[in-house]
Amino acid sequence: MKALVLAGGSGTRFWPVSRRQRPKQLLSLEGGRSLLQATVERLQPLIEPSSVWVCTTEALTRQVREQLPLVPEEQILAEPEGRNTAPAIGWSLRSIPAAERDEVVVILPADHRIEDRDAFLRTLETAERITREGDRVMTLGVHPVRPDTGYGYLELGALLEPDSGLRKVVRYTEKPDQVTASRFVQSGNYLWNAGIFLFRAGLLLELLEAHQPDIARGLEAIERRPERIAELYPRLPSISIDHGVMEHLDEVVTLPLDCGWSDLGSWEALFEVLSRDANGNVVQGEVVSVDCQDSLLLAEEGTIAILGVEGLVVVKTRDSVLVLPKDRSQEIRKIVAALEERGLDELL
Amino acid sequence: MKALVLAGGSGTRFWPVSRRQRPKQLLSLEGGRSLLQATVERLQPLIEPSSVWVCTTEALTRQVREQLPLVPEEQILAEPEGRNTAPAIGWSLRSIPAAERDEVVVILPADHRIEDRDAFLRTLETAERITREGDRVMTLGVHPVRPDTGYGYLELGALLEPDSGLRKVVRYTEKPDQVTASRFVQSGNYLWNAGIFLFRAGLLLELLEAHQPDIARGLEAIERRPERIAELYPRLPSISIDHGVMEHLDEVVTLPLDCGWSDLGSWEALFEVLSRDANGNVVQGEVVSVDCQDSLLLAEEGTIAILGVEGLVVVKTRDSVLVLPKDRSQEIRKIVAALEERGLDELL
Repeated sequence: MKALVLAGGSGTRFWPVSRRQRPKQLLSLEGGRSLLQATVERLQPLIEPSSVWVCTTEALTRQVREQLPLVPEEQILAEPEGRNTAPAIGWSLRSIPAAERDEVVVILPADHRIEDRDAFLRTLETAERITREGDRVMTLGVHPVRPDTGYGYLELGALLEPDSGLRKVVRYTEKPDQVTASRFVQSGNYLWNAGIFLFRAGLLLELLEAHQPDIARGLEAIERRPERIAELYPRLPSISIDHGVMEHLDEVVTLPLDCGWSDLGSWEALFEVLSRDANGNVVQGEVVSVDCQDSLLLAEEGTIAILGVEGLVVVKTRDSVLVLPKDRSQEIRKIVAALEERGLDELL
Repeated sequence: MKALVLAGGSGTRFWPVSRRQRPKQLLSLEGGRSLLQATVERLQPLIEPSSVWVCTTEALTRQVREQLPLVPEEQILAEPEGRNTAPAIGWSLRSIPAAERDEVVVILPADHRIEDRDAFLRTLETAERITREGDRVMTLGVHPVRPDTGYGYLELGALLEPDSGLRKVVRYTEKPDQVTASRFVQSGNYLWNAGIFLFRAGLLLELLEAHQPDIARGLEAIERRPERIAELYPRLPSISIDHGVMEHLDEVVTLPLDCGWSDLGSWEALFEVLSRDANGNVVQGEVVSVDCQDSLLLAEEGTIAILGVEGLVVVKTRDSVLVLPKDRSQEIRKIVAALEERGLDELL
């Protein structure tokens, strides 16, 4: 089995720690390894770094290489510009030698957190077997624990394999409204789409050809004229693998992934998974706190001195400090928008 | 008239902006001039800088000189070590040439804020006349607006001059408890001691001799052996002019000072006197705020990005950020104590 790690993201949900040039997947949000490094390391021994491909953007390539010295350099691919996951996956799969394209590839986002590595590897092993044996397209699903409107939901169909829990996916609904999400969660018949897909490399290239011919032709053109990639790549249609391919397929299957998965979508989500001190605070760096509870206090550089607050996120970097109530973490985009509006691009 | 500005204070109530080496009186808390500079400038034209003496500590002398280029260098006096106000005033007055010691001196703290300069100068002029004519000891008083337990209270006696409002001071009570302070304020018969005193220089030296002979002898010894000041000055009794002299006098008089006085005792006190934006926030420096109210947001260096808070103090300096509820500003000493305990002396 091979892995293709998608590491081109450029989010701002962890501003001020995450920046355009230092996105979430490159950060050590828990201290220690970055999310990208953890993504690659937890695959061993099932998939060794020599069988890992990484797709990132040119701006991040140097950092990705530094973080992943064991991944062969030629398998770290740099998009001239992010064009969403369908072009990224298609382009990456074409860089796998043709003779190896009958192997199963697992697509992994580089910025998720997985608590129980053994459970993850067991599921991945089962998924690989099923994918290989039936030449199927597989997506791993996570049991939803709240009616989150930020995820895609997989509606479960027929149980195909009682032992593994393999099921058909009947329908895929991206980012439902609150009422719909609540209904989905209550029904017990939906999983969150974790963005982890498995398929035979050659199969996905065929499906891309069938459902996204413009992308397939564009990738062929780049293969013929690799020196023109900077001009050609940005012309590829920007579309996700979900919309571009998965939703067109008659049969996608899913396995439930029960391994303490989190996509760490916000400061609050990070707070939830980190260990807290006696006052219920998550503290990193030089923090002097007096009479504080239930807060995320993170000093990347310098000192945070804080007294008498509850449920607050305070994050200090060299140049900035963020302060907001933990339960309003999602609204950080308003801050980022305000920074852009004020022309403070050097902070983004 | 001469002025003696007491600029040796080393408070931490404006941490992280105020530091041991950069105390409150040297700060530009409102932007522009420092409190010390404002103290000297607002005396003109009544008292020119050439008639101003400044008493500070050795550690601050360079900064004081830089901030007050018009005050003659020899009138900026550097205590080897702060020994409270009685020694500071005695030592400073002895540096006034003997021939000029019949002039009235006004003692001014360097770290207070006065809003209405004209009213202040009018009161000062009246106070000088009264002090000179009757060879009196005068302290200016401020009408109390809340039962603050942090101030000294002057109990008012007989009205001596209906026009000016000159009154005898019957009793002086330093830092009363809450019940007493409330009673004082409700009675309408008390003023806050603003720490602004007037007297003939020679008279105060006589009173110091009478009531604090140890200080007087110590100062004489320093005058005889000025080269030994570093050794002798720290041996002077550490006592305030209030306790050491004022409280022993049969007659001290007071004039009410109605000029928008504030001793800026906390971040909250600073918030109260500064102008607010449409959301009721006081904002200085690079601050991006979304949906915030009633907060003091001060970025001395770098950027504060803040969302969804109310009544908070957030102060960012190069190395630190302070976060606390505005109405708990007084508790900053707990933070300073915690910094000391953690050995973070470089932040103090």
